[in-house]
Amino acid sequence: MDFDYERRTRACQRALSSGECLVLFPGPNCQYLTGFRDEPMERHLLLFVPRAGEPVFLAPVMYDEQIGDTHVTDVRLWDDGEDPREGIEVILSEIGPERLLVDDRLWARFTQDLQAVTDAEFGLASEVLEDLRLKKDEAEIDAIRRSSSLTDRVSEEIRALDAIGMTERDLAREIDSRLADAGGEGTSFETIVAAGDNGARPHHRHGNREIEAGDPVVLDFGTRIEGYPSDQTRTVVFGGEPPEGFEEVHDAVREAQEAAVGAVAPGVPAQAVDRAAREVIEDAGYGEGFTHRTGHGVGIEVHEPPYIVAGNSRKLEPGMVFSVEPGIYLEGRFGVRIEDLVVVTAEGCERLNGSPRGW
Amino acid sequence: MDFDYERRTRACQRALSSGECLVLFPGPNCQYLTGFRDEPMERHLLLFVPRAGEPVFLAPVMYDEQIGDTHVTDVRLWDDGEDPREGIEVILSEIGPERLLVDDRLWARFTQDLQAVTDAEFGLASEVLEDLRLKKDEAEIDAIRRSSSLTDRVSEEIRALDAIGMTERDLAREIDSRLADAGGEGTSFETIVAAGDNGARPHHRHGNREIEAGDPVVLDFGTRIEGYPSDQTRTVVFGGEPPEGFEEVHDAVREAQEAAVGAVAPGVPAQAVDRAAREVIEDAGYGEGFTHRTGHGVGIEVHEPPYIVAGNSRKLEPGMVFSVEPGIYLEGRFGVRIEDLVVVTAEGCERLNGSPRGW
Repeated sequence: MDFDYERRTRACQRALSSGECLVLFPGPNCQYLTGFRDEPMERHLLLFVPRAGEPVFLAPVMYDEQIGDTHVTDVRLWDDGEDPREGIEVILSEIGPERLLVDDRLWARFTQDLQAVTDAEFGLASEVLEDLRLKKDEAEIDAIRRSSSLTDRVSEEIRALDAIGMTERDLAREIDSRLADAGGEGTSFETIVAAGDNGARPHHRHGNREIEAGDPVVLDFGTRIEGYPSDQTRTVVFGGEPPEGFEEVHDAVREAQEAAVGAVAPGVPAQAVDRAAREVIEDAGYGEGFTHRTGHGVGIEVHEPPYIVAGNSRKLEPGMVFSVEPGIYLEGRFGVRIEDLVVVTAEGCERLNGSPRGW
Repeated sequence: MDFDYERRTRACQRALSSGECLVLFPGPNCQYLTGFRDEPMERHLLLFVPRAGEPVFLAPVMYDEQIGDTHVTDVRLWDDGEDPREGIEVILSEIGPERLLVDDRLWARFTQDLQAVTDAEFGLASEVLEDLRLKKDEAEIDAIRRSSSLTDRVSEEIRALDAIGMTERDLAREIDSRLADAGGEGTSFETIVAAGDNGARPHHRHGNREIEAGDPVVLDFGTRIEGYPSDQTRTVVFGGEPPEGFEEVHDAVREAQEAAVGAVAPGVPAQAVDRAAREVIEDAGYGEGFTHRTGHGVGIEVHEPPYIVAGNSRKLEPGMVFSVEPGIYLEGRFGVRIEDLVVVTAEGCERLNGSPRGW
């Protein structure tokens, strides 16, 4: 399915107020509006989107081809011998903005270059882009769905391995390798394999600990398809007897995850989904062990709004995609987390992950 | 070898002028001064380094442990329920800076939060940190040397493979896997395997092209040790007869690389090293095919000053580490690049890569 960048750009322009102009640089916002995918870079590469008229790219000449693939036709290239700040000055004098909505992640050196040549007020691009990016279009949902299915398949393969005796790191590499074999574009974040008491530390990625019989192992990973990420967590035991209390904790997390997914529907405040998960875990007596929010939005970024957290009264709308991932962490013992991505539908939600959730 | 973060912080404070205060956030500068290694993040995590007195971290409570491992003892933690902007206001009122040198990559949203509570002027952290970071200390050189040796070993292993019939992507994965097996920390950038005419596109990473007999293959990769990167390029032919003209081009690049390495010495302007490489290639009649600068500094970042480029009159000093990587790119035919890292010494330079440079 094709991404309609031009449609997104027009929608963004309509959302701007009179006198406003977006200034983006390489990153998720720029990718969202143009399909241009690259990391933030030292060189001045800026996209100006005024309310009226055409967007303008200012870019190093070596990006000519990549920029040429986008729908933006007004491209001002600068060469290593030129000062790109002159290009900024020219473009801003043409647009004459009263307020610049700069990329929330625009580097300070570029902010200061802008400030040097304009008296415009400064705001943030998220003022208009957050709302647009929150609701995914069909092409975006399709990419996330395919990425999630691929992750499901790898999850089932990994479960079937005899991983006892492997180190967390080796198992993480096995996961990464299978994601790539299956056609994934890298990983959407550093794969987490946390065995035994490492599972109780939500920040742990993977280390040299060997997986032993009876170890609960938190497996949290994802990949990308057409730039869109998946993100899935299962907590499994590869063999042997799990530690005392594990089954009860796993049941509580699974029930909490079901309750939270069940709470997702249009019009429901994001925090109500968090509340639904937390209530089950509190009722089971493990409230203190659930130390993080219930979920995060997923789109071009693997962590983006909406955040499923207490205090977020934003109402859910069809097309929003986010994770539902309650967990319980018992220091020095083990941790359990179960995570699926869901997309809000007209009636409730659709889960994008379907691999077995048992241990 | 241990990194002496406290010494670096003191040196940085001495380099500040009266009334100046650094404001860093997660990234290379923060890692340089404290050893705190993380990606830039949504949450307010800022390091304030005033000219006099102690540095202060403002950090989300979940980073308590990681921050606790640094030499910074004044740590102000904030919880998800609190507004971190109040913390910024308190810290700035204590320090009372006249000029804030903010991280060159500080996100606009954090810049705007700072601007909302201070009348201080804004400058960039690089004004003081660039000079300090340019010259590597023994521990840094040691880490880059070890990372480079490891990359050399993998380079020799890869050369010995029968890679004909493999895709670029598969060979890239083989390289990444061997770097990890040898103890490297991931890759320092996305591994480049560019076969045949793909080698003529300096931006190409790797794709589905199969390596054929006679293909020149550009192999450009590196890993990290203790956070410090390596970066090495060789252009090899795995078997068969290389295309017409390849040997002559390879000879020219190799000679240019030798000339450039030979030109490195304290007091020499960076651009003279670029000139030395370019002259050889121009004399060989391939000047137009050498489309990029000769090198870039390497430290916590794999691309950082000093840039070895025309126009950079900065004089080399002992302790600077950079790449020397001339190349010739013949569109539709092939490309050749040869790259080593060097460290400037009292007399000239030491190459940090020693694997065979032939094809």
